[in-house]
Amino acid sequence: MNRTRILFDTDPGIDDAMALAMLALDPRAELVGITTVFGNVPIELTTRNALALRERFGIDHVPVARGATRPLVKPAGDFADFVHGANGLGNVELPEPSGALDPRPAAQFIVEMARRHSGELVLVPVGPLTNLALALQLDPELPRHVREVVLMGGAFGTHGHGGNMSPVAEANIFNDPHAADLVATAPWPVTFVGLDVTHEVVMTTSYLDELGARGGPHGTFLRDITRFYEAFYEFRTGGGICCHDATAVACALDASAFTRRPGAVRVVTEGLAAGQTIQSVRGSRFPATDWDGRPEQQVCTGVDVTRVLADFRRLFPG
Amino acid sequence: MNRTRILFDTDPGIDDAMALAMLALDPRAELVGITTVFGNVPIELTTRNALALRERFGIDHVPVARGATRPLVKPAGDFADFVHGANGLGNVELPEPSGALDPRPAAQFIVEMARRHSGELVLVPVGPLTNLALALQLDPELPRHVREVVLMGGAFGTHGHGGNMSPVAEANIFNDPHAADLVATAPWPVTFVGLDVTHEVVMTTSYLDELGARGGPHGTFLRDITRFYEAFYEFRTGGGICCHDATAVACALDASAFTRRPGAVRVVTEGLAAGQTIQSVRGSRFPATDWDGRPEQQVCTGVDVTRVLADFRRLFPG
Repeated sequence: MNRTRILFDTDPGIDDAMALAMLALDPRAELVGITTVFGNVPIELTTRNALALRERFGIDHVPVARGATRPLVKPAGDFADFVHGANGLGNVELPEPSGALDPRPAAQFIVEMARRHSGELVLVPVGPLTNLALALQLDPELPRHVREVVLMGGAFGTHGHGGNMSPVAEANIFNDPHAADLVATAPWPVTFVGLDVTHEVVMTTSYLDELGARGGPHGTFLRDITRFYEAFYEFRTGGGICCHDATAVACALDASAFTRRPGAVRVVTEGLAAGQTIQSVRGSRFPATDWDGRPEQQVCTGVDVTRVLADFRRLFPG
Repeated sequence: MNRTRILFDTDPGIDDAMALAMLALDPRAELVGITTVFGNVPIELTTRNALALRERFGIDHVPVARGATRPLVKPAGDFADFVHGANGLGNVELPEPSGALDPRPAAQFIVEMARRHSGELVLVPVGPLTNLALALQLDPELPRHVREVVLMGGAFGTHGHGGNMSPVAEANIFNDPHAADLVATAPWPVTFVGLDVTHEVVMTTSYLDELGARGGPHGTFLRDITRFYEAFYEFRTGGGICCHDATAVACALDASAFTRRPGAVRVVTEGLAAGQTIQSVRGSRFPATDWDGRPEQQVCTGVDVTRVLADFRRLFPG
């Protein structure tokens, strides 16, 4: 099997924990590093959670590097403790982690890992894109070394799915729109796994209960941490959760379960639409626009929900 | 029959001419005034065309008032002569009009007509919204007197329909976004007839040919002026035209052929998304946003195309 070499950039976060479980357990994934970023909760908590989850999922050999505390340009905003709980993991307590952090800042770690695995590494950021933007600024040659970026972020308005921070803005992009625009317009292949698909991938209450009851200790743990998340998502799902970050991992491991649409992507950084991702779909015809001459990226507009959910479930044999 | 009393604000424009023909011929419409605005072509041409079309359609009793030359705030932009022809009517020449202009500026005319027909008047703007914004500034009480605003403008991303000036901006709104935001947030009922529906209402080449051959002198005239427009729209329709402005008139006369979605609308005035219309759909759940406390408006998200086209065709019995 050709394993996909992945660096996971994360702000755990309940759905981050589910995505990390996938990366730890799926034989198609070779996780070579974890970088942390502010986002769902502050950087101290996301970093502590990443270290604790590394031990919980038995991947102590994977280095964890601490990243950005705040966005590139916009003022630090609010955190999403009403979604993820005050500790970022649905208020389920994990033992104090004993492993150490990698000494490098996340941006430097990303640059060095990309050069070490040149042409092989897939970056999977599932929080604000600050670390990737800093890595691009640190090493303008970075895009040449990275195979692909598959990120959880954005909302492109397909299937009636708008944003979750405003009618047009998704939270990861909204939390650092300047960084997101740098990532979207850099000369590397980027796939946006946004709300257009992640709001479709719903793990229902019965799916989660079955995972908890017959998915072994990891399944039980994920069921425990998702209870808080499920209470928040009740208004949208009527019972169950939207599976954001694990859907990005699924796409990084096998894009064939997704429909992708090509075209340059820009991010609105200021004003009413701040945080909006906008794609100029290939073949569109406009007067001169700010998308002209930008690299074509891929936006997920469809997903085989049944397959993604079944693939995830199989990772927890009980 | 209850006739709908309409003031038509227009920048003719080929599809403006089609809409004006409807207003002249449809027994459900009582056209009480025409105001002109820059837009498809400069104000001198749109005003001259409005006067000439008034005579062409035999509605010499309807006053025409000249309006804005340029947008409220943004610099004057380019005109759409590549869509409408250098003269704004597909380069078909009409006789020099003999009738006079109303002496009042359009904004004053709108205010006075709204007060004269208080509670009755429906404003149907199908160009940039500058005249309506100026009228709101002239008379803050204006919204109390107007029954409804049914405008051609905007793109809300439904059915995969984006903008026509950028991936998110429609031309009328793009041409004066500050005016559009004032109109969208004033306390009067506004219905947006945007590209979401007007890109669905396609008059095919065979529809237009039949109209020209068996629709009498008005049908022949409309067929003549649409040839230039059709050449522009070939890339989108594969033959035929998108019927923007007449679709707004259809909605003003009978909204039952349309699906409308409620929720506050704001317009992006600057930056990458300038000219984008964004609706916060009723029942959405976000942190505090710029839509909070704004009046709920209606956005057309669906249209009975067959019915709109058949209703239009019946106005030209041959």
